[in-house]
Amino acid sequence: MATAVAGPEIERLIQLLARLPGLGPRSARRAALHLIKKREALMAPLTAALQTAMDKVQVCKTCGNLDTQNPCTVCTDVRRDPSMIVVVADVADLWALERAHAVNSRYHVLGGTLSPLDGVGPQDLTIDALISRVHDEPIKEVILALNATVDGQTTAHYITELLQDADVKVTRLAHGVPVGGELDYLDEGTLAAAIKQRTLF
Amino acid sequence: MATAVAGPEIERLIQLLARLPGLGPRSARRAALHLIKKREALMAPLTAALQTAMDKVQVCKTCGNLDTQNPCTVCTDVRRDPSMIVVVADVADLWALERAHAVNSRYHVLGGTLSPLDGVGPQDLTIDALISRVHDEPIKEVILALNATVDGQTTAHYITELLQDADVKVTRLAHGVPVGGELDYLDEGTLAAAIKQRTLF
Ligand SMILES: [Zn+2]
Ligand SMILES: [Zn+2]
Repeated sequence: MATAVAGPEIERLIQLLARLPGLGPRSARRAALHLIKKREALMAPLTAALQTAMDKVQVCKTCGNLDTQNPCTVCTDVRRDPSMIVVVADVADLWALERAHAVNSRYHVLGGTLSPLDGVGPQDLTIDALISRVHDEPIKEVILALNATVDGQTTAHYITELLQDADVKVTRLAHGVPVGGELDYLDEGTLAAAIKQRTLF
Repeated sequence: MATAVAGPEIERLIQLLARLPGLGPRSARRAALHLIKKREALMAPLTAALQTAMDKVQVCKTCGNLDTQNPCTVCTDVRRDPSMIVVVADVADLWALERAHAVNSRYHVLGGTLSPLDGVGPQDLTIDALISRVHDEPIKEVILALNATVDGQTTAHYITELLQDADVKVTRLAHGVPVGGELDYLDEGTLAAAIKQRTLF
């Protein structure tokens, strides 16, 4: 069906762009055309930025963040509170917490969550490294910032058990009404948790 | 607000990706992360495909299509009917008609439509080149495949007037109900046109 109207090179570019999350086949075609038309203003700098990222971005050997420094900017930031560590499943979660200025500590990226159904076990995540860090660093609190899903909470429980003998407080994110959220769109579990964990006005 | 969590190189990649149609700031961030994670499987081939497109893709000097050949694959395809030419505003329209296998002829890409409000006049489009082609090539029919918008139809009228003395039939796309379209979602103009141009069942 997809005739190679414009030669295999452009078709290949479209196919690769279509594999980006958020772009379907139709929008990938539009994106390719946009890039080709904005050759100097967009395609050239994007190609260069990708090449730079290819050459320079690494996985932080300490926390699993992605950065051009190793250890990463977050790990080497001396103004961060060394007594806390925030455990996240994915680098995207780390970035989201940083954008929210939610916490001023360091992180540990697990690389996913435990998922027996998908065959993801403890050995597939950086759980061993987390336990070592908790013992080696002056950490007093481990904040489990994991999704409120079955897999996320399974992972949280697993880590909590492993840390039972360590001298640290293990905490997790509060449940509640999202800021700006409308009550009648929320599920019953969230509403019940929001009532239970209510705070003084 | 957008803290450079992961260094300026990744932030720059995110900003450039956000300029692609279809990707907002949030999905650009996700796309960048996906690319960095799929370094060998996606980022490397995409970088190479962009570089190839940068090096090879040109504007066809005959019809305005984008291709790695010049004249393009469509212009040099001898199996196409040389007696018709399809006039489109944009390369995206050419590609859409080719994907639909709508016609087996060659094209002429205007590079936009006349738009007095946006300061787009005839000299900004490839209208002169179209008129020359119509006189130089064995063209008997000019199909104006332009948007059914004010600017599209203004452009169609303008070209039709210029071709009045040429020995060619000038046609335009039929109005009607889109395939799969529901009548009660269509505007009155489309419905009226669909009745007027009704065909035998
Ligand atoms: Zn780090
Ligand atoms: Zn051409």
